[in-house]
Amino acid sequence: MYTVYGQAISGNCYKLKLCLSQLRLPFRWVELDILAGATHTPEFLIMNPNGQVPVLGIDAETYLPESNAGLCYLADGTHLFPSEKLPRARVLQWLFWEQNSHEPWVAGARFILKMAGGGPEHQARLAICHKRGVEALDRLELRLGLYPFLTGDSYTIADLALYAYTHVADEGGFDMKRYPAIRTWLDRVAAQPDHVKMLEA
Amino acid sequence: MYTVYGQAISGNCYKLKLCLSQLRLPFRWVELDILAGATHTPEFLIMNPNGQVPVLGIDAETYLPESNAGLCYLADGTHLFPSEKLPRARVLQWLFWEQNSHEPWVAGARFILKMAGGGPEHQARLAICHKRGVEALDRLELRLGLYPFLTGDSYTIADLALYAYTHVADEGGFDMKRYPAIRTWLDRVAAQPDHVKMLEA
Repeated sequence: MYTVYGQAISGNCYKLKLCLSQLRLPFRWVELDILAGATHTPEFLIMNPNGQVPVLGIDAETYLPESNAGLCYLADGTHLFPSEKLPRARVLQWLFWEQNSHEPWVAGARFILKMAGGGPEHQARLAICHKRGVEALDRLELRLGLYPFLTGDSYTIADLALYAYTHVADEGGFDMKRYPAIRTWLDRVAAQPDHVKMLEA
Repeated sequence: MYTVYGQAISGNCYKLKLCLSQLRLPFRWVELDILAGATHTPEFLIMNPNGQVPVLGIDAETYLPESNAGLCYLADGTHLFPSEKLPRARVLQWLFWEQNSHEPWVAGARFILKMAGGGPEHQARLAICHKRGVEALDRLELRLGLYPFLTGDSYTIADLALYAYTHVADEGGFDMKRYPAIRTWLDRVAAQPDHVKMLEA
């Protein structure tokens, strides 16, 4: 059985929970408190020396860090990750874009406001997160006004990954009323079979 | 024949040049001046609405943005990207880590100092880039003190991708004298067959 080492409030951790649920794979969830230092204990650093959640436990000695690598591993050979070369590269294109152009800013703003207290020491970084986060959401809005899902007509792990932090972007101070196509897509993703909510047990 | 739309000084663009060279695939390079706005023309935005280089031109109507997606596409089925599920996921783990925990900060600092003039308006962002960039380089140093290449004994597109900005990290103000294992690995990567330099024609 798979194990997810994560924190329920984290979008990156939610990605693995959602993917495992939608693939109907049984898993165990180990809840860790990031702010209390649980990702920097010697035991955790053996699993991921980078000190970040989630980690996908594959067996008692095999641990895979990086949420999107976990999605690729779990969805390999399933309907959520195409096997043909170009469609597969398109899914990867959006997964890399998520980690570079979306997550650092959209999730970053939410972390500052929801978890780190949003104090004055965070304001310079928050301003950068808001500027770059709006650019990312504008880009998503453009794309999702043209296609029902990120890579075209089918729901894939690209949609799953982008959903994780976009559906709680308002908690980072982003005004989601500006994004009708994103909101329609969020509903479409949430209507997929075996969808589970972020904080649902 | 493949086409790379890129700027020679960009590490992300260099990744595709290096991968194509090492796979001995013929390609055409179209040089674009990012600061002059070449990635925001209507012609470019058709290829990549995100307005970023590189774009890998696969044929006259197929364009693939995101440097690491391009690496996965090009190296699929070759010795640079293992086909077995777990070794493949390990390569993806490092590719996602590069785009999330390394490139925004290590490349970001270099962009500010080398291309954007390094003026006072950039200092808040530069400080964040230096803090997070040092964390990423410390992490690389730890890993490369244990293994010759990022995923173990073999050179893969994970090494190629991390090499691109790490080998010019000093241009972003990072003190590479602190990282002996990284420097040995940089030499090891540069000694791989068909290696080409960033600014080599």
